[in-house]
Amino acid sequence: MLVMGIDPGTATTGYAFVREDDDGAPVAVDYGVILTEPKTPMPQRLQHIYREMTRLIRAHQPDEAAIEEMFFGKNVTAAITVAQGRGVTLLALADAGLKIREYKPAEVKQTIAGSGNAPKPQMQEMVRALLDLEKVPKPDDAADALAIAITALQSSRWERLIDS
Amino acid sequence: MLVMGIDPGTATTGYAFVREDDDGAPVAVDYGVILTEPKTPMPQRLQHIYREMTRLIRAHQPDEAAIEEMFFGKNVTAAITVAQGRGVTLLALADAGLKIREYKPAEVKQTIAGSGNAPKPQMQEMVRALLDLEKVPKPDDAADALAIAITALQSSRWERLIDS
Repeated sequence: MLVMGIDPGTATTGYAFVREDDDGAPVAVDYGVILTEPKTPMPQRLQHIYREMTRLIRAHQPDEAAIEEMFFGKNVTAAITVAQGRGVTLLALADAGLKIREYKPAEVKQTIAGSGNAPKPQMQEMVRALLDLEKVPKPDDAADALAIAITALQSSRWERLIDS
Repeated sequence: MLVMGIDPGTATTGYAFVREDDDGAPVAVDYGVILTEPKTPMPQRLQHIYREMTRLIRAHQPDEAAIEEMFFGKNVTAAITVAQGRGVTLLALADAGLKIREYKPAEVKQTIAGSGNAPKPQMQEMVRALLDLEKVPKPDDAADALAIAITALQSSRWERLIDS
């Protein structure tokens, strides 16, 4: 079972591929960020995100994908920019025929840290510990994507458990 | 000179193809809306928008595209949904290699009706008159897309005038 986790955006899209070990432990296979330059026109930035997403999916062949739901209280302009990036990301996932799970930020925090209000440093330390990494994974958006992927693996285990 | 005008969205994406007559008058070649069902999962809705956009571009081979900039003061959830649709629309335009003009709603109103605050019925009547149509074009999002396309034709005429 290999899950692709995504922290959507336009300037920075975090991605992570996490598989389940034989004993059920999550293992980080690959993670990083897709970057686009604010100076580049938006259509070309979206094209870059779509192409990189598609390249990563082809390279890793995940079984499922998981993406964060969007919540924006204040900055609508930022929300619009991020949502445009999220749109082409969802398109890449749909074009690859992947099942997509969506999680609220609080759901990811609850799964990883046992608290829906867990602060970022605590979340990152939990991701490091769960994946048995030496250091906290960087950059932040990649760590977020790892957290989302681990959450999806957890949901998937639960579904298999209740199905059996 | 054929321009594609787009009023972006997710449930409804308005589109219009407007060409310039020999005497410079705008002529509506085609217009309508791409519809998606709220019940359908978002990735599949975005896929439908991208595919229909690409199909329309291939069928009409426009020289340029024009799209409305997004402004949302209140409803952030609606803004996010529309922006995701706008993202895959921009991707389709970039993939087709089209030059893209972006206009604020007030700029379109200013060009079409001579006032940045023109109310919708007045705008629609002006679009009808400019295109020499018998009735106001329907639905509203298609009429908006026609207005955006006419605005882009106007910008293009102006550029050719100052270049010559």
